[in-house]
Amino acid sequence: MRIIVCGMGVVGQSFLRLLISNSSLLYKNYGIKPRVVACMDSKGIAYSQTGLDMERVLRVKEKYGEVSKYSESIFKTDNYIENIDAEVLLELTPTNLTTAEPGLSHVISGLRTKKNVITVNKGPLALSFSSLVELSEYNNVMLRFSGTVGGGTPVLDFAKHCLKGDRITSFTGILNGTTNYILTKMADGLLFREALQDAKEKGYAEANPSLDIDGDDAAAKLVIMANWIMGYKVTLNDVDKTGITNIDQEEIIKAAKERKSLKLIAKCDKENLFVRPIPISKDDPICVNGTLNAVTFQSEHSGAQTIIGKGAGGIETASSVLRDLIEIKENFTNYQLN
Amino acid sequence: MRIIVCGMGVVGQSFLRLLISNSSLLYKNYGIKPRVVACMDSKGIAYSQTGLDMERVLRVKEKYGEVSKYSESIFKTDNYIENIDAEVLLELTPTNLTTAEPGLSHVISGLRTKKNVITVNKGPLALSFSSLVELSEYNNVMLRFSGTVGGGTPVLDFAKHCLKGDRITSFTGILNGTTNYILTKMADGLLFREALQDAKEKGYAEANPSLDIDGDDAAAKLVIMANWIMGYKVTLNDVDKTGITNIDQEEIIKAAKERKSLKLIAKCDKENLFVRPIPISKDDPICVNGTLNAVTFQSEHSGAQTIIGKGAGGIETASSVLRDLIEIKENFTNYQLN
Repeated sequence: MRIIVCGMGVVGQSFLRLLISNSSLLYKNYGIKPRVVACMDSKGIAYSQTGLDMERVLRVKEKYGEVSKYSESIFKTDNYIENIDAEVLLELTPTNLTTAEPGLSHVISGLRTKKNVITVNKGPLALSFSSLVELSEYNNVMLRFSGTVGGGTPVLDFAKHCLKGDRITSFTGILNGTTNYILTKMADGLLFREALQDAKEKGYAEANPSLDIDGDDAAAKLVIMANWIMGYKVTLNDVDKTGITNIDQEEIIKAAKERKSLKLIAKCDKENLFVRPIPISKDDPICVNGTLNAVTFQSEHSGAQTIIGKGAGGIETASSVLRDLIEIKENFTNYQLN
Repeated sequence: MRIIVCGMGVVGQSFLRLLISNSSLLYKNYGIKPRVVACMDSKGIAYSQTGLDMERVLRVKEKYGEVSKYSESIFKTDNYIENIDAEVLLELTPTNLTTAEPGLSHVISGLRTKKNVITVNKGPLALSFSSLVELSEYNNVMLRFSGTVGGGTPVLDFAKHCLKGDRITSFTGILNGTTNYILTKMADGLLFREALQDAKEKGYAEANPSLDIDGDDAAAKLVIMANWIMGYKVTLNDVDKTGITNIDQEEIIKAAKERKSLKLIAKCDKENLFVRPIPISKDDPICVNGTLNAVTFQSEHSGAQTIIGKGAGGIETASSVLRDLIEIKENFTNYQLN
């Protein structure tokens, strides 16, 4: 199975490490012999049609900060993704919720040249879900994106595979760990700016935290879930969105008096598609603290079911990419992928 | 797909209702045309090789309390299960954790005559897990038991299907709703006998509640999970088990002072296989209240993940039987099951 890795940040590097440490297991349990033929970062590309030495790619990336130093001869071609032969493209570049680039072009290039695509980048799906799914179906390849929601926690898989014969009628979730951490700290007595500063120091919030605190990240995940699980056709613009920047201490104290916690809640049902701060009963299973994510699915017969886990993390998200890879392999056993 | 239903209590009746209300959906989405050829309760059997009128079976059961009044001619044969042609046997009789009967004989009869078996009865699996799995493999049929753990909450499916490529290293859970309800009420200030009485009045506890309060029900579920998820070969006797009958109010008050709640915890890891009351931090996602069940799986790469839901209920458990039925159908599409 030949793989192109686009994006060599924390997830990309964690994924290579996972492949290295699990290679014999992957072959034994799933018949997968992965061969990473290309790795790209923002500065260039490392390429070998017979398969890159993954340990060396990691060492080069660590030493020089760019993978193109992998070999002396510079690999030159336009449209890398289209022109390199591979069965699977991994799109692991950073999320951009305005243009979705460069991820969107990568995903389209991959699908158009009949590569199965795994993305953990929320941008392309939050802005163009339906057309990308259509493109993958037209080209008879798979588009998988388990890591876009919940990091390593299999929220999408759970909804899609564990409730067969039932019908999910709505879901409610805490989909962003950074804001949940900030709100947890505010419930402990910190002011918003103190809690934000704390989150930055712990590495939970970016230098520019607006994607998180304005609710965009949660809204993007909500859009992906609404499309994939509920069969809606919505984009980011359809979400009624309020972030957490204007919350004051009074609201949090008032919630606490009623045995509640203020949480940034994403909700999807027949009437609603929103992200906003809402007081949640402390007895509700989704009322989790710290950086945890939680989603409650309401289904027709089997009732309410909640899944809780870390919503981010390099190794966790890389494990979701590995899950998608296994699923692609299992669905294409009639092809010769090895 | 011809089905024999053994046991016509709450789950059996709920299952028939689910089949009736979902018949067109089942055919459209999964190609399943269920035909219930026999229903058995403790007093007799209703039988029709061309398929029973399920609405009438339900009316007869409600009116007479026994399904054998379905037709005037009494169906007579020994070894019903072996002698009736069917692709699937549902074992829905009450759990017996001493002899596992009559469920164990039913399951064995079904597997031996090459019927796929779905059981929600914990007894046979808690006492003979390995040999039943072996028997099903020998006869090349499926043995499914989603409803034995978590009721409608897909705890087993989650562990088996949603964490591919990863490895579960341990799990910790609240597996019995009755005891969790009693402990929740005790944390509110009731004495054990008052809380038990309350649970009985609400229908959460049986007249003879020993299976629940002595920890046997949780231990049986622990055994099923340890075998199925972790690949252990254990039975009920291997569980180190303590129930909740000897808890006194002091322990509960002490736990509360440390922001903890006393919970009946089932745990499985390399060293441990136990059921016992343990104080759990209120910040821990598995610290759920009321009749809820919760399980946290610790896995190698994707971290800790918790799944929470109602652990019982007729319609919920029936929905898990339906899930198993769909999985059997999907795994046997090369056979002619309709």
